[in-house]
Amino acid sequence: MSKITFMGAGSTVFAKNVLGDCMLVPALEGFEFALYDIDKERLRDSENMLLNLAKSLMKKVTIKAYTSRKEALRGAKYVFNAIQVGGYQPSTVIDFEIPKKYGLRQTIADTTGIGGIFRNLRTIPVMLDFAKDMEEVCPDALFLNYTNPMAVLTGVMNRFTAIKTVGLCHSVQICTEHLFKALDMDHTGIKEKIAGINHMAWLLEVSKDGQDLYPEIKRRAKEKQKNKHDDMVRFELMDKFGFYVTESSEHNAEYHPYFIKRNYPELIEKYNIPLDEYPRRCENQIKGWEEMRDNLVNNKSLTHQRSHEYGSRIIEAMETNIPFKFGGNVLNTGRLISNLPELACVEVPCVADRSGITPTYVGELPAQLAGLNYTNINTQLVTIEAAMTKKKEYIYQAALLDPHTAAELSIDDIISLCDDLIEAHGEWIPTFD
Amino acid sequence: MSKITFMGAGSTVFAKNVLGDCMLVPALEGFEFALYDIDKERLRDSENMLLNLAKSLMKKVTIKAYTSRKEALRGAKYVFNAIQVGGYQPSTVIDFEIPKKYGLRQTIADTTGIGGIFRNLRTIPVMLDFAKDMEEVCPDALFLNYTNPMAVLTGVMNRFTAIKTVGLCHSVQICTEHLFKALDMDHTGIKEKIAGINHMAWLLEVSKDGQDLYPEIKRRAKEKQKNKHDDMVRFELMDKFGFYVTESSEHNAEYHPYFIKRNYPELIEKYNIPLDEYPRRCENQIKGWEEMRDNLVNNKSLTHQRSHEYGSRIIEAMETNIPFKFGGNVLNTGRLISNLPELACVEVPCVADRSGITPTYVGELPAQLAGLNYTNINTQLVTIEAAMTKKKEYIYQAALLDPHTAAELSIDDIISLCDDLIEAHGEWIPTFD
Amino acid sequence: MSKITFMGAGSTVFAKNVLGDCMLVPALEGFEFALYDIDKERLRDSENMLLNLAKSLMKKVTIKAYTSRKEALRGAKYVFNAIQVGGYQPSTVIDFEIPKKYGLRQTIADTTGIGGIFRNLRTIPVMLDFAKDMEEVCPDALFLNYTNPMAVLTGVMNRFTAIKTVGLCHSVQICTEHLFKALDMDHTGIKEKIAGINHMAWLLEVSKDGQDLYPEIKRRAKEKQKNKHDDMVRFELMDKFGFYVTESSEHNAEYHPYFIKRNYPELIEKYNIPLDEYPRRCENQIKGWEEMRDNLVNNKSLTHQRSHEYGSRIIEAMETNIPFKFGGNVLNTGRLISNLPELACVEVPCVADRSGITPTYVGELPAQLAGLNYTNINTQLVTIEAAMTKKKEYIYQAALLDPHTAAELSIDDIISLCDDLIEAHGEWIPTFD
Amino acid sequence: MSKITFMGAGSTVFAKNVLGDCMLVPALEGFEFALYDIDKERLRDSENMLLNLAKSLMKKVTIKAYTSRKEALRGAKYVFNAIQVGGYQPSTVIDFEIPKKYGLRQTIADTTGIGGIFRNLRTIPVMLDFAKDMEEVCPDALFLNYTNPMAVLTGVMNRFTAIKTVGLCHSVQICTEHLFKALDMDHTGIKEKIAGINHMAWLLEVSKDGQDLYPEIKRRAKEKQKNKHDDMVRFELMDKFGFYVTESSEHNAEYHPYFIKRNYPELIEKYNIPLDEYPRRCENQIKGWEEMRDNLVNNKSLTHQRSHEYGSRIIEAMETNIPFKFGGNVLNTGRLISNLPELACVEVPCVADRSGITPTYVGELPAQLAGLNYTNINTQLVTIEAAMTKKKEYIYQAALLDPHTAAELSIDDIISLCDDLIEAHGEWIPTFD
Repeated sequence: MSKITFMGAGSTVFAKNVLGDCMLVPALEGFEFALYDIDKERLRDSENMLLNLAKSLMKKVTIKAYTSRKEALRGAKYVFNAIQVGGYQPSTVIDFEIPKKYGLRQTIADTTGIGGIFRNLRTIPVMLDFAKDMEEVCPDALFLNYTNPMAVLTGVMNRFTAIKTVGLCHSVQICTEHLFKALDMDHTGIKEKIAGINHMAWLLEVSKDGQDLYPEIKRRAKEKQKNKHDDMVRFELMDKFGFYVTESSEHNAEYHPYFIKRNYPELIEKYNIPLDEYPRRCENQIKGWEEMRDNLVNNKSLTHQRSHEYGSRIIEAMETNIPFKFGGNVLNTGRLISNLPELACVEVPCVADRSGITPTYVGELPAQLAGLNYTNINTQLVTIEAAMTKKKEYIYQAALLDPHTAAELSIDDIISLCDDLIEAHGEWIPTFD
Repeated sequence: MSKITFMGAGSTVFAKNVLGDCMLVPALEGFEFALYDIDKERLRDSENMLLNLAKSLMKKVTIKAYTSRKEALRGAKYVFNAIQVGGYQPSTVIDFEIPKKYGLRQTIADTTGIGGIFRNLRTIPVMLDFAKDMEEVCPDALFLNYTNPMAVLTGVMNRFTAIKTVGLCHSVQICTEHLFKALDMDHTGIKEKIAGINHMAWLLEVSKDGQDLYPEIKRRAKEKQKNKHDDMVRFELMDKFGFYVTESSEHNAEYHPYFIKRNYPELIEKYNIPLDEYPRRCENQIKGWEEMRDNLVNNKSLTHQRSHEYGSRIIEAMETNIPFKFGGNVLNTGRLISNLPELACVEVPCVADRSGITPTYVGELPAQLAGLNYTNINTQLVTIEAAMTKKKEYIYQAALLDPHTAAELSIDDIISLCDDLIEAHGEWIPTFD
Repeated sequence: MSKITFMGAGSTVFAKNVLGDCMLVPALEGFEFALYDIDKERLRDSENMLLNLAKSLMKKVTIKAYTSRKEALRGAKYVFNAIQVGGYQPSTVIDFEIPKKYGLRQTIADTTGIGGIFRNLRTIPVMLDFAKDMEEVCPDALFLNYTNPMAVLTGVMNRFTAIKTVGLCHSVQICTEHLFKALDMDHTGIKEKIAGINHMAWLLEVSKDGQDLYPEIKRRAKEKQKNKHDDMVRFELMDKFGFYVTESSEHNAEYHPYFIKRNYPELIEKYNIPLDEYPRRCENQIKGWEEMRDNLVNNKSLTHQRSHEYGSRIIEAMETNIPFKFGGNVLNTGRLISNLPELACVEVPCVADRSGITPTYVGELPAQLAGLNYTNINTQLVTIEAAMTKKKEYIYQAALLDPHTAAELSIDDIISLCDDLIEAHGEWIPTFD
Repeated sequence: MSKITFMGAGSTVFAKNVLGDCMLVPALEGFEFALYDIDKERLRDSENMLLNLAKSLMKKVTIKAYTSRKEALRGAKYVFNAIQVGGYQPSTVIDFEIPKKYGLRQTIADTTGIGGIFRNLRTIPVMLDFAKDMEEVCPDALFLNYTNPMAVLTGVMNRFTAIKTVGLCHSVQICTEHLFKALDMDHTGIKEKIAGINHMAWLLEVSKDGQDLYPEIKRRAKEKQKNKHDDMVRFELMDKFGFYVTESSEHNAEYHPYFIKRNYPELIEKYNIPLDEYPRRCENQIKGWEEMRDNLVNNKSLTHQRSHEYGSRIIEAMETNIPFKFGGNVLNTGRLISNLPELACVEVPCVADRSGITPTYVGELPAQLAGLNYTNINTQLVTIEAAMTKKKEYIYQAALLDPHTAAELSIDDIISLCDDLIEAHGEWIPTFD
């Protein structure tokens, strides 16, 4: 019996999306869906939910929750990863509150930036542990990573473990559709080309019937920008750098030195930037979960419609050999993007079919876009040095290389901030020399 | 009205396959199928055949034959190319008969080797003319090249013209299925990886449910090889170099210095090598055509079933945005195959969808396979130098670098043979200094 | 008669260094030293000085000042370039004063940063004019560029003209010696490896008899840093990023977002940063020139000792075929530094001999150093886009990508600052759309 | 006391050249010259010779012969390697005589070809043993390899051991001078560019005062070729492929399929090819040694003049930091020659100075030259596979890929020939599966 394992299965809503999708794939009939989470209660919730769903959908799949990680992974053909290390409490709160004391404000803190660095530092060791188990009990499994920070974690898996890993993010799949909706344009029949790094990939081409749509897009965007809306940072980036970026304004606000600036406090208002957005979302999610839990977990007539998540489609392609093309995160081996470094993890069009995940060749990005990508890749690559060598100096350097952190704080404050964060995270991160 | 143009449409059987396939694609309803050929009679035959077919299949497409090449191409979205320059008479006969006087025997002479070189020299100028027209009247069209020698012609189009070109060959698509049939093995559910150069791409991986099938394949192949059969060269190559090659024995017999050897005349028998196979086929085809012509051209109830040709599937993928993966010939830009040169034209997995043709990254070939590929790429790249500079010395060098020619003849004989061929081909090739 | 041409020969002191050096090279006996400058008076001064010098040193060289640029270049074998476009007045003053209005302070403004961008924009067209002349009258000459901004100008010459160009800077040649003097260490017998980009190349290795000297260097540097001195920024960079940088503190202060920060005004004092250093130097130089002029220009007993400038040594190596190794600026073609982009202009060990200038292979920089280099390369490559396309948007993007500018100013202020600078520079720069 | 170790010091004449040269280098005063050889008698001879030489030259160096390999290497700063494994008897005789039985004739058999393959197979394990010792007792030493087959052995050292290795060959250093002498042309002031692979590097450029000398060279070469002389193969290669090759005709005769052909026995005469040249030289050398031994070994007034060997000059450059440029063999890491594979060992301009051996960037070879290089690189890379995996199939493939072997013999004969050679070499080579 083939097996799909879900790490971090306690995320009941997301597990429903991904594994619910899988239930709807005829080629996966008869598969085992193995669930694992360190939170036993949430794990049981997800198990219940999926048992109900399978029954209600009348699908012949086996749902099984495991308390042993290695047993959950043993023999798996596909492994979904959606873990969060350290949780909202204490880790996310620390990542936001301590920088705030230094006057450094953030919105999401899950990618790069000071929050992203520490999120990586606590997640990498766990991922390496997963990989060690997998090398033993399912060395050929495909690891479909949904956990952030995407670029660093996917890069680490592919550089330092034997586990084939692809990183999946929602931002690229909905990029163009979202843009067209926002501008009240018709999205059908669009031809697009997207590449870059996770959360900062670029809509390099967008056309219909051979006609470049960017002039019209930019015209409408400029118009829209005259009034306040919830995606102003992204539109500003397009206006200034010429291309639309895959991730939302609340994310991009902290990837660049342009938006959250103590010297220009008015920019928060001007660009409508939701500071502390992620903690707010976490709290809403926690509250929301209490409300929706019963309906989701114990609902005998639970239903599901195939979502837009790439996960089930990739597996379906690999099982049926009908190719599926998607924007995936892979190492830039062979310089798929020729002007980004080979060790960077890039987000490029990939194809899934029976032969696995095959990335496609992109070529050269416009200089200014590669430039913006570099400013984030710098921190990513040095963060990986920190995690793999356990040397504190690389943590400092990663923070010093982050454009937003470096713009806002002095070297001394950055070092001190890192030291405070190292201390606050305590045992959630390894010991650094 | 969108338009597909077919250059060399006088190949009625092939035009039926490719354009007949296109008729069966719902997304191509309403397209114009534009036909062009310098042979007006054959052109009219194909036009009749396709008109009958469209009627019989009740398809709403426009069939139109053109006498002006530029008008045939004007506004095309896709251009199929299946021309043959010089024909069986005089060109192919020359390519076989003159080398024969020097004791140099060939089988197909359409790829590399002395015949391939001259086939290139007479075809490249025509292709460059096509490209010049296309740059003027349909600069964004995709050029789907079926004409041999595939690697050189596709390379020239992509290096020296602005026309996006992909080269398509039957050998890669039927490679594994053919192998499995020959060995009486079940082909369903096979995972494969094929890459290399046209007519010499390699079945790098072949497995089922994670199990490598090569050991069993090689065991059966060794057994089969004990008795005479019609694919002995290819099986010998697999036995000695460890991997199965995409093109057939009659082709590969002349790509290597191992099979047609004056010092070992017994090898022709031992490997069952059909010398002069291509002229024989041409003559059969000419004879066959006379017999089948009426039934094909004037048959009001002509039918068609979708063939295995990639052509219509690529166009369908580009129109519907449902990806199609295939083995295509493209420049090795960005070193898709990392140990072949960037200017080589390689055959690698490609994806077609609305964003066009995207090649995928392959990585490194085993050293011995790259080695065999190089011996043919050498001649290809120098042949291109010859065609683009019009310098005779490069023709000589291309021939000197061909492994079969160099094994059989002395330098003086090779030079003399080239001179004889240059003279014999006369105005079918340009003037060389 | 072989000819060395000096563009910008009105820099009498520098002309004395470089051409005085050349007089001391026996292999250059009999050469013509051709002088060119748009400032006729300064040109005559340099001519007088060199005539005196040649006489006093009893050297058989021909000194000749030209009023026609093309005649000065005609037949040259080597061309030195030491021009400054726009001069202290008006250009340098503008580059400092207008940013100052926005609160953006600079120290030197000759590399990247807002001042470097505009220095490039006014110098590139002049360089392209030189190249056009040279392609006509001395196409094989070697162009030895001393003019800043080094990386961009040398990159432009090598990418967009046929003139072989190498960029020469003092910073790399004195790097280690300067460091050792500052730390009271013995410099003899040192083995070093330096690579990166101009003004931000890195002392990657420094050892003696196989022993790494960095631990001792860092220990002493930490000690020295306890008291105020004139190279504190550079020592701070070494302390935080682990490697010593080739250019001085007053330059590096403005290449990074760490040192000149409105939010941390105390850093100016802490790091002892000489704001507006370059204008101050210019004024001193102008004053100094008046004092020294007579003694330099009309001194019949003028003497000269071979300086440390690379120029005469490179030419000597090319004439004698005795190799000379130096840190030169060349395109990163073939990825000499494997983790910097191919279009970047890098500073790497090069060899001069009769076969010309040959760069050597360096390999990969530590991630944090490549990271710091990228932040400056970003602006350089986009500045080149601006100069070659004449599109204003690239000027904005170049400025937005500069780490110091982006840290200090908002997007709107950066755009407005660029607009003010474009207007203020008037006809010294081309028209941008 | 710094130490230079000479492996294979029993080659008294060569040891005199290389170490005699070193005695003449002032910077090497006080060095120990450590001698090692498995032939104790020859070792003692060399020791005596060098002791006499040092005394006669009044040089303060320590000469010491070692019977322990590890002690000879311990603490060495430089290691010369000039070993020969298997010797003339039995190995070289086997390499010539067994192929001869199959009708496969050779001239030198020390590079590629069937003889080169087996010379590699018996030498590689010894070299790996050296490297293992060196990693323990002198890990930072520079290994200067003079042993053939140069490309494979140098490649193996650099790919599979931690020992920095450069390969040195006489052919590149005398290439141009030799050519000019042969054509009665003046060699002074020549500018040249040479790159390729060992024994098949190309004189890519040769000019004087900016004038290309190739037209005159080719004119004279054509004239010379009208009469029989001892370098006819090389001149024929230049005539046909456009460039002069570094190694002599007797070597190149067996690297290509053009010269030694059973079907064209007259070519031996026509190109004046000395079949079995190397065994003849060996026998002369053995005889010659008996005659010269006493005069060399026990000559109290032995003298020495600095030879053209690169060895002492490289060490001198590394000790004095005055750069020395030479044609060295190094891995093609970073694609110094952009159209040869990264794993190939290439011969390119290198610089020695205190920072070690630094290769320079070459760029792209003309397609036909890269083509000829590939045909030999193919065998080299697959030979390495054979040596490192101990799989017999790679020996067969290496032989099958050799152009001369493949041109002359059938697959069956090649396999059988390999089997015979494996058996004949017995314990001189490892066991292969």
